[in-house]
Amino acid sequence: MIYFDNAATTKPDEQSLKQAEKYLLKEFYNPSALYSEGHKINLELKQAALNVLSQIADINNFSVIFTSGGTEADNQAVFCGGKRGNVVTTLGEHSAIYSAVNELKQRGIEVRFANLNSDGSVNVKHLLSLIDAKTSLVSVIHVNNETGAINDILEIAKRVKAKNQYTLFHSDGVQAYGKISFRLSADVDMYSVGAHKIGGIKGCGALIKRKNLILKPYIFGGGQQQGLRSGTENIFGIKCFEYASIDRYAKLKENYEKVKEIKEIIVSKLDKNLFKVVSPLNGSPYILTVSAVGLRGETIMHEADDSGLIIGTGSACSSNANKRFSRVILACGFDEKVADGVLRLSFSPSNTENEAYEAAEILNKIVKHRKEVME
Amino acid sequence: MIYFDNAATTKPDEQSLKQAEKYLLKEFYNPSALYSEGHKINLELKQAALNVLSQIADINNFSVIFTSGGTEADNQAVFCGGKRGNVVTTLGEHSAIYSAVNELKQRGIEVRFANLNSDGSVNVKHLLSLIDAKTSLVSVIHVNNETGAINDILEIAKRVKAKNQYTLFHSDGVQAYGKISFRLSADVDMYSVGAHKIGGIKGCGALIKRKNLILKPYIFGGGQQQGLRSGTENIFGIKCFEYASIDRYAKLKENYEKVKEIKEIIVSKLDKNLFKVVSPLNGSPYILTVSAVGLRGETIMHEADDSGLIIGTGSACSSNANKRFSRVILACGFDEKVADGVLRLSFSPSNTENEAYEAAEILNKIVKHRKEVME
Repeated sequence: MIYFDNAATTKPDEQSLKQAEKYLLKEFYNPSALYSEGHKINLELKQAALNVLSQIADINNFSVIFTSGGTEADNQAVFCGGKRGNVVTTLGEHSAIYSAVNELKQRGIEVRFANLNSDGSVNVKHLLSLIDAKTSLVSVIHVNNETGAINDILEIAKRVKAKNQYTLFHSDGVQAYGKISFRLSADVDMYSVGAHKIGGIKGCGALIKRKNLILKPYIFGGGQQQGLRSGTENIFGIKCFEYASIDRYAKLKENYEKVKEIKEIIVSKLDKNLFKVVSPLNGSPYILTVSAVGLRGETIMHEADDSGLIIGTGSACSSNANKRFSRVILACGFDEKVADGVLRLSFSPSNTENEAYEAAEILNKIVKHRKEVME
Repeated sequence: MIYFDNAATTKPDEQSLKQAEKYLLKEFYNPSALYSEGHKINLELKQAALNVLSQIADINNFSVIFTSGGTEADNQAVFCGGKRGNVVTTLGEHSAIYSAVNELKQRGIEVRFANLNSDGSVNVKHLLSLIDAKTSLVSVIHVNNETGAINDILEIAKRVKAKNQYTLFHSDGVQAYGKISFRLSADVDMYSVGAHKIGGIKGCGALIKRKNLILKPYIFGGGQQQGLRSGTENIFGIKCFEYASIDRYAKLKENYEKVKEIKEIIVSKLDKNLFKVVSPLNGSPYILTVSAVGLRGETIMHEADDSGLIIGTGSACSSNANKRFSRVILACGFDEKVADGVLRLSFSPSNTENEAYEAAEILNKIVKHRKEVME
């Protein structure tokens, strides 16, 4: 099988699992326990935080709250950061932000959505026009999970602060962390990352925050993680995340070039008469969204699966919503015919160029046959 | 090392880990993905829910929301169940309830705390007297994590409903699930369980709820788990939890008798002149709390650690709060001298009778020496 749905989840990194294995049966102690064995695990957690953080930020200015994943991190940012006035976000957010701000709206907080450009990036001018003196939080996704468009969050954060220095700036970095090169500036107050998109396991992520930002916890209890996130820490998941982070950042450039080549092969080999490229060419090389305009993406996806190619039809998370069209693709300005035919191919550094050639061939064949049948 | 801090966390069950291993590198697909590989994982999640649930409840009347642990489950119960009027709970709750209801209080909801009996169980008469027409939620811990006292939650839930049929009843069952025999009745609306106390891994738990109870999610996003808890499911953790549950329930009685024997050996062998038994004799056999009255538990715990015996000084979770005395032990009516000397020994079925004899000897020796030094 060719697996090209790595933005939904990717195979855990075998080496990272092996390194973290000792935290299952050997170093299983409760990190809050006061005896030396527990204390040792606690130090290991601190080390993990530093290694996850130092890849993208100055450890003197930022800190890490380990969560159960990107979704929980996004929820903490929204519900603990967006308590007053209005909240500004974009029409291109992942459901973890989109559903959370819609819940905020139900609780009486005004939520304003900035329009997208046709590639899925936010219309920055529109976003800035929505910010006023009462804006408590702005949240802008770093790499759009459906199109791969990259928002220049450092520049956006700077301009947000210039409009209102008291507004908190958050970014969902789940599809950026470990994949594209960046370093957080002091204008970014909070940043969400997830482990299972970069070779960690499911059930682990983090909210990275500015060190001197006072933030409430979202999960209350025993006061773990300086009181910012209670619950016994998932030490195995956290260490897997740490090791996967180190590995991905050590090979960031090399991996980037590799998946870029894979993306480019597929773009060049897909039949232009059958597929429309939705993703921007300057977006993340890890995501390629195309549309078999006029056909249903879901049908093609199932046929591809039968032919040995696993791809997505947009965000895996939106499949629970039972909605035919992606709200993000429509917000890019595409019509329902394009939205209906959307296929998302997403890559990992362990994919090969051969797989890229094969995938393009499989997709060309399926769509060509479908169109012939329809005629 | 003798490990007698199993109520803080216990060593994962090797067999369960082995069984779940394939969900790391082989069956790693996103359970929300629509292709067959994803769908298969989704069915595995449903199977896990049934196996976790069927041990303690009728699968026709209850359902499972997998969470990141008992703490998150407790938070969902409190924040989604206790939205109006007043909330009634006990002075014997784990921090996951205690801190959450204190946050509710800060948000303007009245919280009423029922007193404890001297063994740590709730004073039921007092609890019932606190319930009125405006009580939205009652939460009573099933097995007290500090003393091991068992609350008869089925009887309490029945009497709560008799006072106000609209009041939701929740119980934190983290120290009961997989350890003592019970089955949920229809009077129990929500019940929290955790994986890493019974041989699963950290970072996994569940909120069990009455099927026809309408409950809001606490974590919003892609709509996983019928919209009740978003975030890509932690399939490895959930399958470990499932297998550990099956194992613990298959051996429930046998394990119970085994740890009961261990507890009784220690009670009988500890020097009565040096230790006061705090735990009730009819409590959970998995927990034995004693006090070296007049000494500091923490000092003894460290000395025991150096002698090869790992024990706790109360809840591992409360160690983050940096408070010298356990609020629960004080609420039982013990004075600060007793509270200061508290030691919690908690057992797992893999502990042995020999370890029990050895532990009692180590503790007698340490405390006797300490007292001699003090004289």
